[in-house]
Amino acid sequence: MDDQSYRQRYWSPTARTLTPYVPGEQPGPGRFVKLNTNENPYPPSPRVLEALAGEVQGSLRLYPDPEATLFKSAVADYYGVSVPSVFAGNGSDEVLAHAFCALFKKGRPVLFPDVTYSFYPVYCALYGIDFRTVPLTEEFQIRTADYRGPCGGVIFPNPNAPTGRILPVSEIDHLANRLASENAVLVVDEAYVDFGGTSAIPLTATHQNLLVVQTLSKSRALAGLRAGFAVGHPDLISALERVRNSFNSYPLDRLAIAGGAAALLDRDYFEGVRARIIKSRETLSGELRTMGFEVLPSSANFLFARQPDRPAKEIMAELRRRGILVRHFDHPRISEFLRITVGTDEECTILVRTLREILEGKNWSERDADG
Amino acid sequence: MDDQSYRQRYWSPTARTLTPYVPGEQPGPGRFVKLNTNENPYPPSPRVLEALAGEVQGSLRLYPDPEATLFKSAVADYYGVSVPSVFAGNGSDEVLAHAFCALFKKGRPVLFPDVTYSFYPVYCALYGIDFRTVPLTEEFQIRTADYRGPCGGVIFPNPNAPTGRILPVSEIDHLANRLASENAVLVVDEAYVDFGGTSAIPLTATHQNLLVVQTLSKSRALAGLRAGFAVGHPDLISALERVRNSFNSYPLDRLAIAGGAAALLDRDYFEGVRARIIKSRETLSGELRTMGFEVLPSSANFLFARQPDRPAKEIMAELRRRGILVRHFDHPRISEFLRITVGTDEECTILVRTLREILEGKNWSERDADG
Repeated sequence: MDDQSYRQRYWSPTARTLTPYVPGEQPGPGRFVKLNTNENPYPPSPRVLEALAGEVQGSLRLYPDPEATLFKSAVADYYGVSVPSVFAGNGSDEVLAHAFCALFKKGRPVLFPDVTYSFYPVYCALYGIDFRTVPLTEEFQIRTADYRGPCGGVIFPNPNAPTGRILPVSEIDHLANRLASENAVLVVDEAYVDFGGTSAIPLTATHQNLLVVQTLSKSRALAGLRAGFAVGHPDLISALERVRNSFNSYPLDRLAIAGGAAALLDRDYFEGVRARIIKSRETLSGELRTMGFEVLPSSANFLFARQPDRPAKEIMAELRRRGILVRHFDHPRISEFLRITVGTDEECTILVRTLREILEGKNWSERDADG
Repeated sequence: MDDQSYRQRYWSPTARTLTPYVPGEQPGPGRFVKLNTNENPYPPSPRVLEALAGEVQGSLRLYPDPEATLFKSAVADYYGVSVPSVFAGNGSDEVLAHAFCALFKKGRPVLFPDVTYSFYPVYCALYGIDFRTVPLTEEFQIRTADYRGPCGGVIFPNPNAPTGRILPVSEIDHLANRLASENAVLVVDEAYVDFGGTSAIPLTATHQNLLVVQTLSKSRALAGLRAGFAVGHPDLISALERVRNSFNSYPLDRLAIAGGAAALLDRDYFEGVRARIIKSRETLSGELRTMGFEVLPSSANFLFARQPDRPAKEIMAELRRRGILVRHFDHPRISEFLRITVGTDEECTILVRTLREILEGKNWSERDADG
């Protein structure tokens, strides 16, 4: 039986038509300077490690709290909202998936930017949701006025990914208002907001159609633990809970609940880490500009940059040969850009030195010969 | 705005029509003898705790391996299959959800027993899959000959839940053969197979349409860690991977991968624990029969039993008042049964003593007065 007939017999039409999301490479430990998946270069708070160590010795034989109340309460405390305004998921990707199913699957197209998180069209394919992309401006900015016409909802990251550009909260306020008149929900994906943006979470108190999604993977340095959340009107959260409870009652394990809550409670550590990353970003941005890169203004923990003289794919390959991973998207409008995660100052220094060598046409063997 | 109009405006039709699964109660620690959610009464292997402690000190800031290769390799080694024959998920509930989407969403009804895991119809509602239930025999057994007629697939637990009754692997062999001629997939949900059943995993080598799902929540005592898996033909696994990668690239966190792999590697501990539970089950079963309970023969870590003289709901409420949780399903055919998880010998002794008091019409205050 060949592949096609096998698939025809046993796969669902959905499985046959999907084009899955492809995450950035996760190589084995220690081999690379890893600036390709926007992880935090610093470890999580020591309080997280304490909480996890305690939980490991606890009752792993028992199911977790299906409501993840400890974690949701920590989110609620941090943002000054009520627990029923908070939804928890196995990373923000799962939260987004449930949001597409619960809020966007309505027979009208969902709108999102042409340049954005490439998981959005994948969710649409999974749930059979129509979508329409709305072009960013020439400067790669979201213009909310362009999100017009009948739609089932609007979603974008703020700051946007992979551009890093931020939209003021006032624009989100206006857009949510306008979408309410069309009975449509606005989902703002704030995966990177802690690195220089202002969260739209306070707006959820007055907008019943606004859902704000965040993750602990970036600013809280817990990509390995899988914890994300959303904040919105309790009736919006109810829709997500219904879908979640029709999919998996226990998306957060005991360790993610305990570790996630501890991360949210340690505000000093969090403030210190994000300040360091913002400072490193500004330094790195300046260095890249010195080397002729065009660097978009970033409010995230990454830079989106192009070098007019050398193809992005080539630079990425050269960096990889030299042990540095960055991310490149072979998509329209952005195929000349590299997305570079802000690492430690040491990692940024290695990156800058290596880029200089690449752009000067030197390679390691020449340098070794020179030395 | 009232609830109805809010839902009409902002929820998807899917969210509006769902009736979510309701998991068993998860009370705070220490308040109850907890025999209601089929957890293992013993802790996980000490090697799991070591692996977790190591991983906590590792690289939680980095994403997990999206392929969970360490975990899949441990499954593959344990069952003597290849890694591409293994799928991993955030608990077997997530694995089952993806299986419904990838293998059952075909425009033909899925068949499952009338008395079975109550999550199956919920998945059907989530994905818009039609289903037809097939009655168990009078003795609450699955009769594979009854799974006839055009269908998109068949699923049942083996041993079945909540009955605990087992089907011989030879029956699964025949059914998978017959379903192949209808281009339909058979999913066998082996959540409880380690407590007295024979796994159908070896049959996956010869049946391209057989998927076997297992969990680490029961026999491996890791309900709190969320790790499940499926074994099947690599082309069947590919369908699940496509759906998974369209939903969440990283369903297993770093701790679940490390802890799950360690649990599968510690065979001696596993054998010891399951032998103890099987022994306790047989003792408890005898005690219940002595008290007039009808007890179905169980190959799981729970007993399904009814007492002809007292309504199940009443016994459950009386047990609860005395600090013991068991599970009751208010469903047709089984509303007179209680599902009782096999606990430690001490927990079973407390249960038996308390049941005796309830059935003799005594309550705690009378006993105290007697004493």
